[in-house]
Amino acid sequence: MSQTDYQGKLDEFRKYIRKIKHYEEAVGLIYWDLRTGAPKKGASERSEVIGELSTEAFRLSVSDQMGGYLDFFSDAARIEELDETNRRIVQEAKKEFDRSKKIPPEKYQDYVVLTSKAESAWEEAKEKNDFAMFQPYLEKIVETNLEFVELWGYKGHKYNTLLDMYEPGMTVEKLDEVFGALRSEVVPLLAEIKKAPQPDRSFLRQTFDKEKQKHFSLFILKELGYDFEAGRLDETVHPFATGLNPGDVRITTRYLPEDATSALFGTIHECGHALYEQNISEDLIGTNLCTGTSMGIHESQSRFWENMVGRSREFWSRYYADLQRTFPGQFDNVSEEAFYRAINHTEPSLIRIEADELTYNLHIMIRYELEKALFSGELKVADLPEAWNAKYREYLGIEADTNAEGVLQDVHWAGGSFGYFPSYALGNMYAAQFTNTLRKEIPAFDELLAKGDFAPIKQFLVENIYRYGKSQTPNEIVRRVTGEDLNPQYLVDYLKDKYKPLYGLS
Amino acid sequence: MSQTDYQGKLDEFRKYIRKIKHYEEAVGLIYWDLRTGAPKKGASERSEVIGELSTEAFRLSVSDQMGGYLDFFSDAARIEELDETNRRIVQEAKKEFDRSKKIPPEKYQDYVVLTSKAESAWEEAKEKNDFAMFQPYLEKIVETNLEFVELWGYKGHKYNTLLDMYEPGMTVEKLDEVFGALRSEVVPLLAEIKKAPQPDRSFLRQTFDKEKQKHFSLFILKELGYDFEAGRLDETVHPFATGLNPGDVRITTRYLPEDATSALFGTIHECGHALYEQNISEDLIGTNLCTGTSMGIHESQSRFWENMVGRSREFWSRYYADLQRTFPGQFDNVSEEAFYRAINHTEPSLIRIEADELTYNLHIMIRYELEKALFSGELKVADLPEAWNAKYREYLGIEADTNAEGVLQDVHWAGGSFGYFPSYALGNMYAAQFTNTLRKEIPAFDELLAKGDFAPIKQFLVENIYRYGKSQTPNEIVRRVTGEDLNPQYLVDYLKDKYKPLYGLS
Repeated sequence: MSQTDYQGKLDEFRKYIRKIKHYEEAVGLIYWDLRTGAPKKGASERSEVIGELSTEAFRLSVSDQMGGYLDFFSDAARIEELDETNRRIVQEAKKEFDRSKKIPPEKYQDYVVLTSKAESAWEEAKEKNDFAMFQPYLEKIVETNLEFVELWGYKGHKYNTLLDMYEPGMTVEKLDEVFGALRSEVVPLLAEIKKAPQPDRSFLRQTFDKEKQKHFSLFILKELGYDFEAGRLDETVHPFATGLNPGDVRITTRYLPEDATSALFGTIHECGHALYEQNISEDLIGTNLCTGTSMGIHESQSRFWENMVGRSREFWSRYYADLQRTFPGQFDNVSEEAFYRAINHTEPSLIRIEADELTYNLHIMIRYELEKALFSGELKVADLPEAWNAKYREYLGIEADTNAEGVLQDVHWAGGSFGYFPSYALGNMYAAQFTNTLRKEIPAFDELLAKGDFAPIKQFLVENIYRYGKSQTPNEIVRRVTGEDLNPQYLVDYLKDKYKPLYGLS
Repeated sequence: MSQTDYQGKLDEFRKYIRKIKHYEEAVGLIYWDLRTGAPKKGASERSEVIGELSTEAFRLSVSDQMGGYLDFFSDAARIEELDETNRRIVQEAKKEFDRSKKIPPEKYQDYVVLTSKAESAWEEAKEKNDFAMFQPYLEKIVETNLEFVELWGYKGHKYNTLLDMYEPGMTVEKLDEVFGALRSEVVPLLAEIKKAPQPDRSFLRQTFDKEKQKHFSLFILKELGYDFEAGRLDETVHPFATGLNPGDVRITTRYLPEDATSALFGTIHECGHALYEQNISEDLIGTNLCTGTSMGIHESQSRFWENMVGRSREFWSRYYADLQRTFPGQFDNVSEEAFYRAINHTEPSLIRIEADELTYNLHIMIRYELEKALFSGELKVADLPEAWNAKYREYLGIEADTNAEGVLQDVHWAGGSFGYFPSYALGNMYAAQFTNTLRKEIPAFDELLAKGDFAPIKQFLVENIYRYGKSQTPNEIVRRVTGEDLNPQYLVDYLKDKYKPLYGLS
């Protein structure tokens, strides 16, 4: 095969990959539209459209044509001829291809139906506080996932294969190590904090005009460098970010009239996800690498901007006066320090999505331990509620009165998303580790926050993380940026440095 | 072939047609999004997505598989076995298939490029008032359309084939007859009106708060029966309606701060289009008949609701007080009668899109005469500006100082849309003819308008026009509803009945 033919085949393959991306972009836009304001009577026909386009995208990704490209370019000699980007494109496509091909189509179809029914069952079970209603579905989902793992293959723990879907390369061995280290420090810290008095937070619970909240959120988004020519902010019940392409990364938020900062921190969180996607390198557009490298790294960016930036003392030294001006009369008697302490309050609580920066990690570890035990066979689904409560007592010192507020609180398991939860805590750890590097590389880090000059910080993240998209693995990125593998000590130090002074601990 | 096999093949064909509709629905949503608020940096990649999906929809509609279905079901014996709806589906698909297949793909591709370049050239030519810049493009477009007509075939005048694309069954012979009759009455009426004094309109030109305009538009939409669970109202520079499916028919408008009624009548106009699409029968969803039957019938509905309803004396006897309350102090000294006269002012003007209900038809006839002459070979593109001006002198008694305000004012020809203009005047004629029937079928027509009780009127239109979608031809609908073919006398009578008293003519 001549060089020209080779290049021709590569162009053809890239065009093929791009076609799949185009279908996915269309589906992404349709979902965004359904969630932000599509009229409800059109939804049933629209879901047929989604089905049509998704099926076609899937068909393209597992077709014989795709198989042919992958066989050709995966050949040991030929893959060496590819440049780095093309090599990664082939590897990523092959990984997806192999994963999809190993599951018999009928089995996968049954599983889609099962999880769809399970989500309805979960909703009702949660409402009625009746775990038994949900139990048979969850048993079947775990069972099917175990079958999938057998088909996909696994190294070491079976759960590793599930982890790898969300965090490529992550293993039980590594998670046990980092979560263990984190827990051994966070649990005693929390115990100390429990003895200290809590800050006043009553002033965060007034009635806050929605338009003013929106105005302030938009202002902060601009300050942080969210590009409104490559995105937009809308309202939804559940906030999210969606990257359709790097020139169109949309975010949503929810304004609670009774809460001063829920929408704001939610917006900053989604902004972090969006900054990542808006700044993926142009040469990755139209490839399967034009997305975040993993759920954990993605979450590290939402957490970094929300917590390390948005909940910092320096940030509010710059913006608190703006907030006071936005809500005249509502913060007149609240000092900047009091506000800072209120938004950084920490306390064990039952509901993960309402948890604070410190306790959040414990909610995740509980779910991780339980998922791991389900997939090693040590825990039965029937025993989940009891195991859940035991873990909450052990890690957080509290226990839910109902399963609705306990084991039934999250939708993830009903959807079959085992291996997803750890991403949230990994995000916190990565964020702290990146922050440590940032502080070394940009010694004026705190002064920049205090000036509202985020450009150098954003620039560092763009250059070192964002632009790579999925062309490097999470671990490659962490090692290159920070000089070492994931290390939970940075999060431990960050949490201690932050919370000890806040609660007057030595 | 057994009955079961036959039914199976029919199901397969219907599924195939539905798939094409799903692609078109996705493309429709993407266009809506691009026009209502998609971030601009994402637009170039998004246009690739449109290209991908449109190409696939086109490929499906001209594929050998489609050809196979059409050969099978178009067979003289077999088509008789189909029920009415399926027969129309086959006929419509076959018409499209034959039309597309007759143009060599490279020729069509060249034409797409040509019209794309022509639109840019037209924009610049209009800006610089330089017809010569646009002339070579227009010559090539006319020439290519003539080639297409030869390939498609034609009966009688070549222009008939172009007319048929927008108004199935319409011919030069029929248009000459109806436009001739209309012109012979409208031109003298306009001459009489010119001698009468014009009503005061100064109060329509104040500064009107945008939010209040929006509020009033939304109020009127609800009153008219626009279903907000099957649609939404957004803002765009150029207002439009788009029916994605009958459960999702979106409209847009533009609020001019200096104009009290531009947005309102624009909204009612688009509402008319939307009421049509929202009320197409459910059993046509997912077929190629799930759309308006022609541009002319579609326009009849926008014009009916905008003019026969929205500009009627009875409508404002019900809603003028609401308008006064919406804009406190701005209409205090304006009587209902003065307002009614102001919004029904008529006067020859140069720009079609700003023309009133009476003169609008003359703008259309001018374009029709010129298009017809271009396609009969009687007129050369080079002579268009002069011919344009001569017609404006003859029909409207005025002449543009510049080609920008004359022959270059519309984008249609740059896009190759010859045969489209007549739809606008056909819409007015159909609307008047339907109104005549409505008044006979619903004798309380005026009282219903005066009460704001539009449900019986809408119901009549749903039952007799809307629900049929494209399953009947324009002429079948007009004959069934009104008992006769298109008859311009109804519009003549309507215009005389309306404008003579307004201008104090006997």
